Amino acid sequence: MNELKTPKTPFSFELVAQDGDARAGILHTPHGDILTPIFMPVGTQATVKAVTPAQLKELEVQILLSNTYHLYLRPGAEVVAELGGLHKFMDWPNPILTDSGGFQVFSMGMLRAIDEEGVTFKSHIDGSTHRFTPEFSIAIQEKLGADIIMAFDECPDPQDKAYNVRAMQRTHRWAERCLKTKTRPDQALFGIVQGGIFPDLRQISAEFLASLDFPGYAIGGLSVCESKADMLATIEVVNQLLPAHKPRYLMGVGTPYDLIEGIYRGVDMFDCVLPTRLARHHAAQTLQGRMNLANAAYIRDEGPLDPNCSCYTCTHFSRAYLRHLVSSKEILAATLLSIHNIHTLLELSQRIRDSIIDQRYSEFRQQLLQNLQK
Amino acid sequence: MNELKTPKTPFSFELVAQDGDARAGILHTPHGDILTPIFMPVGTQATVKAVTPAQLKELEVQILLSNTYHLYLRPGAEVVAELGGLHKFMDWPNPILTDSGGFQVFSMGMLRAIDEEGVTFKSHIDGSTHRFTPEFSIAIQEKLGADIIMAFDECPDPQDKAYNVRAMQRTHRWAERCLKTKTRPDQALFGIVQGGIFPDLRQISAEFLASLDFPGYAIGGLSVCESKADMLATIEVVNQLLPAHKPRYLMGVGTPYDLIEGIYRGVDMFDCVLPTRLARHHAAQTLQGRMNLANAAYIRDEGPLDPNCSCYTCTHFSRAYLRHLVSSKEILAATLLSIHNIHTLLELSQRIRDSIIDQRYSEFRQQLLQNLQK
Repeated sequence: MNELKTPKTPFSFELVAQDGDARAGILHTPHGDILTPIFMPVGTQATVKAVTPAQLKELEVQILLSNTYHLYLRPGAEVVAELGGLHKFMDWPNPILTDSGGFQVFSMGMLRAIDEEGVTFKSHIDGSTHRFTPEFSIAIQEKLGADIIMAFDECPDPQDKAYNVRAMQRTHRWAERCLKTKTRPDQALFGIVQGGIFPDLRQISAEFLASLDFPGYAIGGLSVCESKADMLATIEVVNQLLPAHKPRYLMGVGTPYDLIEGIYRGVDMFDCVLPTRLARHHAAQTLQGRMNLANAAYIRDEGPLDPNCSCYTCTHFSRAYLRHLVSSKEILAATLLSIHNIHTLLELSQRIRDSIIDQRYSEFRQQLLQNLQK
Repeated sequence: MNELKTPKTPFSFELVAQDGDARAGILHTPHGDILTPIFMPVGTQATVKAVTPAQLKELEVQILLSNTYHLYLRPGAEVVAELGGLHKFMDWPNPILTDSGGFQVFSMGMLRAIDEEGVTFKSHIDGSTHRFTPEFSIAIQEKLGADIIMAFDECPDPQDKAYNVRAMQRTHRWAERCLKTKTRPDQALFGIVQGGIFPDLRQISAEFLASLDFPGYAIGGLSVCESKADMLATIEVVNQLLPAHKPRYLMGVGTPYDLIEGIYRGVDMFDCVLPTRLARHHAAQTLQGRMNLANAAYIRDEGPLDPNCSCYTCTHFSRAYLRHLVSSKEILAATLLSIHNIHTLLELSQRIRDSIIDQRYSEFRQQLLQNLQK
């Protein structure tokens, strides 16, 4: 019977269970299925910093994100394509999502000019001038070959209403151009809802993009949002309007709190550099908060980082050893802390998924939130 | 029948085969057997830089070296002892060798004074003053708990004869003090032959140390030797005089050439930071020479680092990907190149061992040396 349900298209989303607004699903992609809600580790330059693909597989990572802006600048999309595409290049045979470069162009590149056609910017690597248009972003992403690709959007300061009106309208026109220019049937293009912290704009954006019938939707502009209340309110507005049978991806956000509250409000996918960035700055993320392993309190601490954690780091090494690696500036500290931090978010996603299927997420959420405040 | 041969003492050396002066053996230690000849990767600060213990196990590393000087300064030998010793601290259940700190005190510390009792030096970390004596070095090594520990020696410039005479004589007196002060029956203490590049001094040193009946011997002072001819001539002099039934360890040396020629002259053990240091400087070691992965020639090179290599790096990644990681300054470059470089030396050791057992090392050595010059 199940055989008959196998989707004919390479990409589809199946809702398995719903508990309040929280959803458990399966995202079918050409490189495998993804159980949602899911956290996606970020491999900006075609590598999750300090972690091998073999270690990512052991962590049961289901999907990685990589950055179009970075890969376009180095080594170049043509090079990746010639070498067989991003999956082969970075030895990741499972699903990959690439962003459009929009966010990076606006946040990392030295911006030169935005016009209706696209954006001119200077590279953060060598200052050379480049130009991205919606068509060009899709062309790069088609060369990279990820399973999920993103529409090219304008990313304004989320507090500036006048700018958000203009940016949102342009993002909508660019979304239509992205849909039109896209050619690869084995890639799913997600639209990105913009509109800053303004509910009326978010409503317009969600309704407009829903009408374009993307196979999935992202909520953009919230990773730079200073207020968690604004973030959650925005998610609520948008998710009421996005089609229920499509996956919803909250971009650039990934603390345990963000996952707990995002999933509670109907988000299915998250990505963030935080777990690996924290790791390179000596911090371990647990569901009871963060630990700074540079702290001298850990010098003789023979316990594991997190007694509740089953990751390689927690089952093999003491806090004292990790503290030693950190204070000795050893690369292994970044590797072991990254493994733990990624595991924490993946394990959290999976446990929340189980609780949604069991219709007990409201209770589990309360428990998770209480632990975070301990 | 084999059961009966199991050695009663926790440490013994068994010669399995000899081909000319080259030897294949088994070193029995409390933490397992080591098949010799063997290369020992260096985990200076209780970590082989950028490689996890799980990856080292996958590489079939048999024994690691760690540095007493570094671990004494950070995190401190008492801390390591309280945490269950070095094996547990760094999650390495297999054999470990610690050096005595002698070489580091003379090469890295800021030397203050050498006298008959010991050496006063300043830490390279914070400039604090410390003093090592033979007794103190052994005490630290007993706290760390490695399977093989080393006598504390004075490490002079190998070219300065007058100094080498004095240093060698003091090293001999210190060797006797190390033997006398040692208490742990589960650790084997190796003596270190000194004497610079001077055959007459090396002869005196080898004969004197042989008379002390150490369970194993090291040849010191050659890692800073500028001439390979001097190094090989010294090995020949020393190995003629060291007892045949004891393991011989050439300290701090580890290019493929050094292994090929050292083993040919009867050396059983090698250690060197080179494979991991080269990796952090973008270089891959192969049996055909070194490759600098920063080279633009590799941008589109889809072949593996070394087509003859079966390591994780060579079986999963292209030269182009490694080149991308190097030019993007990604930590993963150091990890993947370290894995390859360590594998190269371990594989070389094992293939040479097989050829010794098969009595065909003379021929295999010629072939290896020819390949290196290609």
